[in-house]
Amino acid sequence: MSHNSFGHLFRVTTWGESHGIAIGCVVDGTPPGTRFSEAGIQAYLDKRRPGQSRYTTQRQEPDQVRVLSGVMPGEAEGELVATGTPIALEIQNTDQRSKDYSDIARRYRPGHADITYDMKYGVRDYRGGGRSSARETATRVAAGAVARQIVPGLTVRAALVQIGTIAIDRSRWDWDEVDRNPFFCPDAETAERWAEHLDAVRKSGSSVGAIVEVVAEGVPGGLGAPIYAKLDGDIAANLMSINAVKGVEIGDGFAAATLSGEENADEIRIGPDGAPQFLTNHAGGILGGISTGQPVVARFAVKPTSSILTPTRSVDADGNEVDVMTKGRHDPCVGIRAVPIGEAMVACAVADHYLRHRGQTGRG
Amino acid sequence: MSHNSFGHLFRVTTWGESHGIAIGCVVDGTPPGTRFSEAGIQAYLDKRRPGQSRYTTQRQEPDQVRVLSGVMPGEAEGELVATGTPIALEIQNTDQRSKDYSDIARRYRPGHADITYDMKYGVRDYRGGGRSSARETATRVAAGAVARQIVPGLTVRAALVQIGTIAIDRSRWDWDEVDRNPFFCPDAETAERWAEHLDAVRKSGSSVGAIVEVVAEGVPGGLGAPIYAKLDGDIAANLMSINAVKGVEIGDGFAAATLSGEENADEIRIGPDGAPQFLTNHAGGILGGISTGQPVVARFAVKPTSSILTPTRSVDADGNEVDVMTKGRHDPCVGIRAVPIGEAMVACAVADHYLRHRGQTGRG
Amino acid sequence: MSHNSFGHLFRVTTWGESHGIAIGCVVDGTPPGTRFSEAGIQAYLDKRRPGQSRYTTQRQEPDQVRVLSGVMPGEAEGELVATGTPIALEIQNTDQRSKDYSDIARRYRPGHADITYDMKYGVRDYRGGGRSSARETATRVAAGAVARQIVPGLTVRAALVQIGTIAIDRSRWDWDEVDRNPFFCPDAETAERWAEHLDAVRKSGSSVGAIVEVVAEGVPGGLGAPIYAKLDGDIAANLMSINAVKGVEIGDGFAAATLSGEENADEIRIGPDGAPQFLTNHAGGILGGISTGQPVVARFAVKPTSSILTPTRSVDADGNEVDVMTKGRHDPCVGIRAVPIGEAMVACAVADHYLRHRGQTGRG
Amino acid sequence: MSHNSFGHLFRVTTWGESHGIAIGCVVDGTPPGTRFSEAGIQAYLDKRRPGQSRYTTQRQEPDQVRVLSGVMPGEAEGELVATGTPIALEIQNTDQRSKDYSDIARRYRPGHADITYDMKYGVRDYRGGGRSSARETATRVAAGAVARQIVPGLTVRAALVQIGTIAIDRSRWDWDEVDRNPFFCPDAETAERWAEHLDAVRKSGSSVGAIVEVVAEGVPGGLGAPIYAKLDGDIAANLMSINAVKGVEIGDGFAAATLSGEENADEIRIGPDGAPQFLTNHAGGILGGISTGQPVVARFAVKPTSSILTPTRSVDADGNEVDVMTKGRHDPCVGIRAVPIGEAMVACAVADHYLRHRGQTGRG
Repeated sequence: MSHNSFGHLFRVTTWGESHGIAIGCVVDGTPPGTRFSEAGIQAYLDKRRPGQSRYTTQRQEPDQVRVLSGVMPGEAEGELVATGTPIALEIQNTDQRSKDYSDIARRYRPGHADITYDMKYGVRDYRGGGRSSARETATRVAAGAVARQIVPGLTVRAALVQIGTIAIDRSRWDWDEVDRNPFFCPDAETAERWAEHLDAVRKSGSSVGAIVEVVAEGVPGGLGAPIYAKLDGDIAANLMSINAVKGVEIGDGFAAATLSGEENADEIRIGPDGAPQFLTNHAGGILGGISTGQPVVARFAVKPTSSILTPTRSVDADGNEVDVMTKGRHDPCVGIRAVPIGEAMVACAVADHYLRHRGQTGRG
Repeated sequence: MSHNSFGHLFRVTTWGESHGIAIGCVVDGTPPGTRFSEAGIQAYLDKRRPGQSRYTTQRQEPDQVRVLSGVMPGEAEGELVATGTPIALEIQNTDQRSKDYSDIARRYRPGHADITYDMKYGVRDYRGGGRSSARETATRVAAGAVARQIVPGLTVRAALVQIGTIAIDRSRWDWDEVDRNPFFCPDAETAERWAEHLDAVRKSGSSVGAIVEVVAEGVPGGLGAPIYAKLDGDIAANLMSINAVKGVEIGDGFAAATLSGEENADEIRIGPDGAPQFLTNHAGGILGGISTGQPVVARFAVKPTSSILTPTRSVDADGNEVDVMTKGRHDPCVGIRAVPIGEAMVACAVADHYLRHRGQTGRG
Repeated sequence: MSHNSFGHLFRVTTWGESHGIAIGCVVDGTPPGTRFSEAGIQAYLDKRRPGQSRYTTQRQEPDQVRVLSGVMPGEAEGELVATGTPIALEIQNTDQRSKDYSDIARRYRPGHADITYDMKYGVRDYRGGGRSSARETATRVAAGAVARQIVPGLTVRAALVQIGTIAIDRSRWDWDEVDRNPFFCPDAETAERWAEHLDAVRKSGSSVGAIVEVVAEGVPGGLGAPIYAKLDGDIAANLMSINAVKGVEIGDGFAAATLSGEENADEIRIGPDGAPQFLTNHAGGILGGISTGQPVVARFAVKPTSSILTPTRSVDADGNEVDVMTKGRHDPCVGIRAVPIGEAMVACAVADHYLRHRGQTGRG
Repeated sequence: MSHNSFGHLFRVTTWGESHGIAIGCVVDGTPPGTRFSEAGIQAYLDKRRPGQSRYTTQRQEPDQVRVLSGVMPGEAEGELVATGTPIALEIQNTDQRSKDYSDIARRYRPGHADITYDMKYGVRDYRGGGRSSARETATRVAAGAVARQIVPGLTVRAALVQIGTIAIDRSRWDWDEVDRNPFFCPDAETAERWAEHLDAVRKSGSSVGAIVEVVAEGVPGGLGAPIYAKLDGDIAANLMSINAVKGVEIGDGFAAATLSGEENADEIRIGPDGAPQFLTNHAGGILGGISTGQPVVARFAVKPTSSILTPTRSVDADGNEVDVMTKGRHDPCVGIRAVPIGEAMVACAVADHYLRHRGQTGRG
């Protein structure tokens, strides 16, 4: 048991706060011989990095990852070969502005975990969100980059599919578009509408929620287990661990509640290659907790950033009623930066189940 | 690691298939001195038991639980006192009709895990759903009944809030109503509409999905952890482990994605007792993974029963295309029976975090 | 985390007390397709069963195991095929004499866990040793019988090598002899000396300690891990979990402390088959936590049975000084019955590491 | 599951190799409010540090620990207060001589894990022992320093009690003496004999084994569990995880095998304070897996250093027979430096069980 780890055979333990010396994680269980590079990890970190558009926090962090252990140099330039021992990944904290946090040291910001930290721990690192800072998620993105190298043929991608009440038009879904706009939006037209909307939100000092969709292709059939080690159960737990996430669904998700058995059935035929082939994917690639070989599809809902300019009513640790208004560098829509994090968490879940399946059955 | 356990300090391991000799679970970590009774467990099992109305499967199972270990007799009649050693709970399988399963032994029923079991295991207990049978959930309900005794003042209740596209009117919510209709519906008027709708569904041999809401009151503030041992993360994983569940949300859940930061903020004031008091509960009783002391609110979506009378296209294990039509005793809406199971899974998560919190902090 | 489980990918959870309705275990992680039978398990249980000679307790327990879940019938008579789901094994308690335990309900027997149970739990099942009863070990022997089927070519055998101060002569070691005497002694001459000695011990109402040696042949090289998941670490923990065990050693064990580096070195040459071949096995088949392919050799020390006829000074739960004398059916040397238990615990550790190795590396 | 973690509620994950950038560990589960300091940790690290006498390796490592996360500054100079989030401890590797390792890159040194690493991983960091380097143990000593602060009144001390065949005279045991000689020897006369003996061993390029005894005082009664979470089981596993350890015993250990029940009984009387008081401590402070409140006593055997000057016969990765002779900086008796490591591992086990006990029972 750990309060700061996830996964079993592929197990990640993260540490660090927003304003400490560094953050990092220990990746345990990477199969020996797995090849990756610092540059490869860095590419994913750069996607998540804040300050890249006016729609995310202006905090500037180079987020330069270092691999401290668990590897030998490979033949190619910069290539690393996992030795099977724990891989420590570390990112220095460089942009810790020595600002004055005394105004929030004892005030409970609504929507933040300030009050619950005090309930639980009685002591709290109030600087920049402490352990709850979105900064911690950089370590998962790094771990996810290693996870992606473990399952042959695996591709995990994510996109933002809704901001506030504005959803994308799925008929226009284009994965290439995702890298062309600052929202990871697969639909160029909707991206334009979001830009307008978020400009207004940002100017008013408000914030807005969002929905992210993750699609994992190349997940072999047979990963998972029927009940308490379901692939979808672990994906749900992994996604729910991302800050501000309030809901998770697989395949048709909540919409499945409105369907009839006929509508929801993913019928099967024999495909051109002689293998079974599903005609639809309402199930999101998972039946009875086990992958079908189809794309695994998961979505998660991110609540609006709690830090807003409008004063909200609250209390402080001394029992006084106060008004709280959050100044400083914040994202109007934290859902945007959650996109690469969602990818990473699904990649880690798939890698873990891939190794577990291989252990239990000798296949894969 | 286990594929068939959940929880950490309060840990449940379940076993058994639909058509074996028995099903059961081992409940590990119940604090010594916890008092309960077989009759108390039985009351919860009776709520879940099938065959109580025409809206659930007609399979008749007395589901009589026996406590095989981990207890000493208490002073009161039937009272048991936990000794701190593992509590084994067992339920005999009595209604195993010796029917002929040869027609489905090699056919993959769409929406069922038949095909993924074969992908994973290569061998499968096809009788009555095997390990995926809803029957397994009886053991969780039994474990949940023990869990409820661990946290002083805890009340966990659930209700069905939507069947197909027909949602309840929340202004009419009445917990007492839940026990008066066969749907665990808190709104009498909607229950009548559901009765009509489900009669039609049942007659046509179809099925329909549903949404269940679980509310845990009396959860002390401070349970959970910021990231990978979030109370909401464990509730999500626990609920996702229930058969046919495709989505989970906490508090406002997916609706939070559509809100602004102002709308989503749960403001705080000092209450009449001098303690902080939240004015709303969009967060569903959990902030940053840690309970706030407010009611914990979770919802989950159940897909329509995959067993339907309409033939669906599929294949068999020999690579032939076949049509599958499921005869036999099935629920038109498995969401109904998921209500007491959802309660149990939330109760187990809360009990586990209560003990973990006590261990880590010495409080509670 | 569990207080009553061991192993990871091959994970066993046991439950039950000496005087409850039954005892049992849940074996999780058996690879699908593994073949075994109730009769095969029973053969190992019969070895452990008490009452087979005058040197073990006269308590009569048929110890008939039943497989309640996790299997389908195989082709051969009585053959079972694991489906990959949890295998529940259960043994009824039949010889629960309704004797009067009131004399020990509040007295702390020296050498027993009575006093520490009360320190920990505050409530205690005093009947027949409760959870600490040697009876629980039957479930491990059953689990071990399944574990043996998982690693191809694995043979795990054990023998008693010392009773009190009388050690065997290792030059006379004969595995066939182990089944011919009531002590699992590999040296016929020593067995005779033990018979005389134990007769005297038994008549005087005393007891004596013993040392057991377990040898696992056919353990493939490469199982284990360098530090915290060492094969020897897990074997040590598994053996230490057996009642009354006070010490564990691998290979030369404590004697290695007296050797020089030259004496302790297991030199290596190329064998006739072209593969590396160790010339000696001081290491006991494990180097740096990982198996070498040589026989894995472990020994454990069992303290003398604490239940003796001589009165010993103690106290009761009410703070009175009392004299305690244990009447009833007890083993003069519990080390004897520990032999098949030691085998089982090593078999479980090897099976677990076999699956973990396969998961992590894809080999094996 | 992790291959590089130990403990449950107090959980330590270590990472790093001898010749990487750094080594470190993540300490998860330290109760919030626990106070410690870098200087306090450093004091324990300095005890373990090599190069302090001619009897340990001359490798010079300042072993300066840094606390990277999980703390807030306390009131006193240098004092740190745990926030309950993961504490990352890191030690830079500074003395990585750029020596030529090509001679051992493919040779299997007898007694080392070179050959088993290749069996398991197929790839290996051969520089300085890689993951198996004694260097990793510095991180445990650091973690142990934190663990000591968790259990009020706990004192964990260790001493070397045997080198080769020369054991101490226990009647001369003096804890103060332990810090006065380079062997952590509690008996000044024996320390002198060891000095002479080790000088000879060192000059001949040989090595010798040793036995370490750890004594934990102030362990409250009631920690542990009856079977698979025994306090002694976890101590055994923790000690067995130390490099080169081949045996572990609790209390009288292997000697208990030679005792009668009467000799082994720890009788109990009512002490002057009205509480039960044990008259002896054959059990080593643990009965039935649970602490008695007496000192917990554990011993472990360390094999002779495998690196010796005398050439030994071996093979290389290419299947050639070779002679291996280890040059370089090595300890003639690794048992010496194992003393502070043994202390740390016992402290970690006690802290973990202290928190687990508190979680399960609400006491402590």
